[in-house]
Amino acid sequence: MHACDHSRRRFIQQSAFLSAGVILAKPAQLLATANEQGTRAYNIKSKGYAGKDEHGKLALWNFERRAVGDNDVLIEIKYCGICHSDIHTIRGHWGKQQYPQVPGHEIAGVVTAVGKNVTKFKVGDKAGVGCMVNSCMQCESCKKGEEHHCETMGFTGTYGSPEKSSPSGISQGGYSNNIVVKDHFAIKIPDNIDLQHAAPLLCAGITTYSPMMQYQIKKGDKVGVVGIGGLGHMAIKIAVSKGAEVYAFTTSSSKVSDCKGFGAKEVIVVDGADKLKSWFGKLDYMISTVPYAYDMSNYISCVKPYGYFTQVGQPINGELTINNFNMIFNRVNFNGSLIGGIPETQEVMDYCAKNKIHPQIQIIKAEEINDAWEKVVNKQARYRYVIDAATF
Amino acid sequence: MHACDHSRRRFIQQSAFLSAGVILAKPAQLLATANEQGTRAYNIKSKGYAGKDEHGKLALWNFERRAVGDNDVLIEIKYCGICHSDIHTIRGHWGKQQYPQVPGHEIAGVVTAVGKNVTKFKVGDKAGVGCMVNSCMQCESCKKGEEHHCETMGFTGTYGSPEKSSPSGISQGGYSNNIVVKDHFAIKIPDNIDLQHAAPLLCAGITTYSPMMQYQIKKGDKVGVVGIGGLGHMAIKIAVSKGAEVYAFTTSSSKVSDCKGFGAKEVIVVDGADKLKSWFGKLDYMISTVPYAYDMSNYISCVKPYGYFTQVGQPINGELTINNFNMIFNRVNFNGSLIGGIPETQEVMDYCAKNKIHPQIQIIKAEEINDAWEKVVNKQARYRYVIDAATF
Ligand SMILES: [Zn+2]
Ligand SMILES: [Zn+2]
Ligand SMILES: [Zn+2]
Ligand SMILES: [Zn+2]
Repeated sequence: MHACDHSRRRFIQQSAFLSAGVILAKPAQLLATANEQGTRAYNIKSKGYAGKDEHGKLALWNFERRAVGDNDVLIEIKYCGICHSDIHTIRGHWGKQQYPQVPGHEIAGVVTAVGKNVTKFKVGDKAGVGCMVNSCMQCESCKKGEEHHCETMGFTGTYGSPEKSSPSGISQGGYSNNIVVKDHFAIKIPDNIDLQHAAPLLCAGITTYSPMMQYQIKKGDKVGVVGIGGLGHMAIKIAVSKGAEVYAFTTSSSKVSDCKGFGAKEVIVVDGADKLKSWFGKLDYMISTVPYAYDMSNYISCVKPYGYFTQVGQPINGELTINNFNMIFNRVNFNGSLIGGIPETQEVMDYCAKNKIHPQIQIIKAEEINDAWEKVVNKQARYRYVIDAATF
Repeated sequence: MHACDHSRRRFIQQSAFLSAGVILAKPAQLLATANEQGTRAYNIKSKGYAGKDEHGKLALWNFERRAVGDNDVLIEIKYCGICHSDIHTIRGHWGKQQYPQVPGHEIAGVVTAVGKNVTKFKVGDKAGVGCMVNSCMQCESCKKGEEHHCETMGFTGTYGSPEKSSPSGISQGGYSNNIVVKDHFAIKIPDNIDLQHAAPLLCAGITTYSPMMQYQIKKGDKVGVVGIGGLGHMAIKIAVSKGAEVYAFTTSSSKVSDCKGFGAKEVIVVDGADKLKSWFGKLDYMISTVPYAYDMSNYISCVKPYGYFTQVGQPINGELTINNFNMIFNRVNFNGSLIGGIPETQEVMDYCAKNKIHPQIQIIKAEEINDAWEKVVNKQARYRYVIDAATF
């Protein structure tokens, strides 16, 4: 894209979204109030789909977000991806929750208001929010851009974390029409990627990108990806883009041709433990996105001695069984990886935009969310459901 | 020791053991037979303590070992250490076993016969046998001295492994008065270490030394050792000798002063999970010798991000539960480690002899073996029982 095109397009977008913003939520007025009078600021009215308890379906909920503070931006959400973590969290698989709770941490939209201290964004900018919305910003981890490993208060998750500033007492996520977030935790979305393609990069993208960069996968490396869903298909695409030979391991034979399309060199349909034996010791690195307890040790053994295996999928209660008989022979280093820090999340966003690494998505309406969740659990997603926030 | 002393002592030893060997098992005659007539060689008569089933006590058993082959040495066993693995194996904790089976893989003694191709040893040499007695010697792992990772047939364990050449059909270990072993799998024991101190180096020593060298612990590193028994106390001593600051984690408050004596900088008595919290992220490396399933994740979290944690203790069925919630935050690399190859086993033997790194042992008689096993299980060993083989 030429620079002149870029500027022109941005101008047009800004104008459009400014007027849209005023109509929707009067952000200019809110902003003035927040900036000038602080405590008299108005809360932001919001609507979205919330879980009401561990078992039931998500349903439309009208709620409030905090007023736009001096360091905050208000984002009008355009798209939000559905992540398996949303399901685990709302269903209490990872611990007791407070309800109503709006999930969603793959958020892409447009800035409609900014606090007076904000320089990172201006009204009209495309912006995203991933898995966290706050941290202490003072500790060593925060200072080096690893906010997800904040050593003092821990990070505030995009939904379900205690948050004093939130009228509901907890952070509320992106299955909704807007969000108020500290500017630092919003990601700039370049113009050369659509918002619906940008959204899944904020969890599925960064979660797979970060460990692959940590363990320095490089051209020619044999990289295994276990579990080909929202995260797994991004892992394939990113690893392929880095020049790796990618081997996709899936239990769904129906995913073979898709995986090839994503660039996998070979697809292994694991319909029995013997399918893995011939791969023992063959791969340089492996990443597993499987979000349930599974027979992990045989997959780990597919990595070469002293190589690395990263588990990013989080099973119920986090518990995985590891067989140390396998580990003493395979000599593989097992590790887990959470998301990535804000700078690295920006990096994966820019990298994927530049290299046209787009998630394969299906756009759905708000009323289809509950069905989509069942399909995600039943491994029927191809490969990321993205909610059109205009339908809330 | 002066060279002249060395030579003189060796000469005296050889003479003594040669005559002892002839009296005990007529090795010179056996050797001649094996060398000259092959198939007509005599099996070696042996006696030792064997398990007869999964549950019962060990009892004296008279059995035969193969004749001394062209590449074999016959070792008159003087001492054999008791390893927790002996107990797990005989009790079927790691899989079904064939009985009678003589355990023991910390074997130290004197060579009393050598096959015609043997140049590594001569009669009278001090020699040891650790955890393996054979492998293919052809594969890449074997060729680079990682016989314990033999890629074709796997290694033959010192006891309980199928072994065609053995009259009992399985390899028989060191709770006995002699052993026949391929020269390659026997370790030279230097003159500057006693046989009773050398024996435990062949499992407890190499098992802890190998991963600490693999993960390059170095001067000033903060090294944690979990579980202070036969292996753990050697881990402390070896790490201290490398200049590390060693932190010992034990559930036995009675071991505190001993650990300090081994050189630990600090001893943490883990009588509650909260004892570990203040150590989170503090250590460069950690090794766990705990041979049972335990709450591993909190120990792993004591290692700094991107550091390494090695589990060498092998629980029942090898199964350990790992909590991936901890792993995604602690970012530690978990791995397992088996023993070490023959060259590295020789290395730890020479290193410990030279640096006077001796296990803390209690010498027992054969008839005390069953009691000693109960004490090992009940964490009462201080810190390695070593059987005086003269008492069989
Ligand atoms: Zn997610
Ligand atoms: Zn922080
Ligand atoms: Zn052992
Ligand atoms: Zn081999």
